[in-house]
Amino acid sequence: MAVLIKRMALIGTGLIGSSFALAVRRAGAVGHVIGVDACAGNLHKACELGIVDESTDDLAHAVCEADLVFVAVPVCSIASVVARCASYLREGCVVTDGGSVKGPIIAECAPLMPPGRTFVGGHPIAGTEFSGPAAAFASLFDGRRCILTPDDSTDPVALETVSALWQAAGARVSLMEAGHHDRIFAEISHLPHMAAYALVHAVGTADVEGENVLSYTAGGFRDFTRIASSDPAMWRDIALMNRTALLSSLDGFLGSLAALRELIDRNDAAQLEDFFTIAKQFRDGIL
Amino acid sequence: MAVLIKRMALIGTGLIGSSFALAVRRAGAVGHVIGVDACAGNLHKACELGIVDESTDDLAHAVCEADLVFVAVPVCSIASVVARCASYLREGCVVTDGGSVKGPIIAECAPLMPPGRTFVGGHPIAGTEFSGPAAAFASLFDGRRCILTPDDSTDPVALETVSALWQAAGARVSLMEAGHHDRIFAEISHLPHMAAYALVHAVGTADVEGENVLSYTAGGFRDFTRIASSDPAMWRDIALMNRTALLSSLDGFLGSLAALRELIDRNDAAQLEDFFTIAKQFRDGIL
Repeated sequence: MAVLIKRMALIGTGLIGSSFALAVRRAGAVGHVIGVDACAGNLHKACELGIVDESTDDLAHAVCEADLVFVAVPVCSIASVVARCASYLREGCVVTDGGSVKGPIIAECAPLMPPGRTFVGGHPIAGTEFSGPAAAFASLFDGRRCILTPDDSTDPVALETVSALWQAAGARVSLMEAGHHDRIFAEISHLPHMAAYALVHAVGTADVEGENVLSYTAGGFRDFTRIASSDPAMWRDIALMNRTALLSSLDGFLGSLAALRELIDRNDAAQLEDFFTIAKQFRDGIL
Repeated sequence: MAVLIKRMALIGTGLIGSSFALAVRRAGAVGHVIGVDACAGNLHKACELGIVDESTDDLAHAVCEADLVFVAVPVCSIASVVARCASYLREGCVVTDGGSVKGPIIAECAPLMPPGRTFVGGHPIAGTEFSGPAAAFASLFDGRRCILTPDDSTDPVALETVSALWQAAGARVSLMEAGHHDRIFAEISHLPHMAAYALVHAVGTADVEGENVLSYTAGGFRDFTRIASSDPAMWRDIALMNRTALLSSLDGFLGSLAALRELIDRNDAAQLEDFFTIAKQFRDGIL
């Protein structure tokens, strides 16, 4: 395909950033890639693996010639990275990110853009439990959804560029209002992580006659709680950044659990079966 | 190996009962198997697949010549099945089950045994999300734990027979007090099922600007909630039969969730990261 972006600056060479670089290069959609990473080991590895053509520890140098800057750092660092590079961006440069929370990031980043530069918020729905450039692969986004969250102030040409690039990376692009995105992902992603962490916390600290209860767990428990092995610092940041929506989702879950507890407590077999059947139907519906 | 049991009656030819028959036959540990099932379709299939040598719809006929009766029916039906066949059991016959709850089953079944007949409670920690004889396979229990829950009144010879049979089926046998078993499995099995059902219920009924939130779920959510596709009637029975222990486990989980909610609500980044880190350590410890 035709080159969409001649020079891309990749800020953050972790799983998402490195996989994005591999995916757009596989498509021939990006020419030169220059990488920056606060972690020298990641950056070195990304060079070694040919994920980036060039690396630097100078953010200004990385972005000053770039047509597009992809910010793939933890959600709490995105705005500070954008603040530090904003004044070096060339006219027409597009800045985009891959963070799991969108409202607060856009509220901070969009006003940082000088005239003629545009910030477009993005969130690819893909990932693995592994991290770093060595875990990256070009097909990570194939067939997966990528949500972009433009608002009225977003330049339509910049939006089209980011959209075309994600499609070149293999993703199906959807547009969504940022707050709506955050409320949806509070439910389907952030809440399940909280539930898994809290469940493992509760079971791990349960005192059943002094026994290590976890030593009896089998495959089901392991599958169910796999996401509780996710990076604590990353989930701390996501939970706090999407705090309002997540508290609302948590309250809905606490309400469902309390209702279920009440049915068990009053031995209500019919309602209990109904509760499980409704949940099973929801679950089977997403197969 | 030597035949441990000349004639076995298999009551219930579902996944667990049929896999057990296949496993002990693979080992040459059981001679003749006669099957009974309230579901004629299951019983016919079990005959057709050679899981049982003979089938009958007469419970008394099935058990009257048996050296061992394996009751592999839903937990709420175990005691009534045992009650219906108790008076037909021959001297020395051993009756055992495969139910996920042990205290209430043993409290009901042990007193039903005529002198010279013994009930031994058992729980193989194995299964799949499929059911019925067609889903059964001989290696289901290989290397998996099977917990037997004898008490002071359990005949040691009968216990040894059941233990040897499960080992012949490939399982690692542990002994445990029935109430202790039920408290442990409330935590590591019954509670996670309740959490999965309640989570899917909450997310499925969440109203985010009228959108079907579940349509955005990806692999993580699917893995996490797979157990919410389990059979509602089976889990209704398990939840009610293990009600006391399960309510206590649910309260522990509700407490952990409320503590986590409080940390998010008051923006406590340090404590939040600690909470996630402790959970991750528990989870990584069971890998």
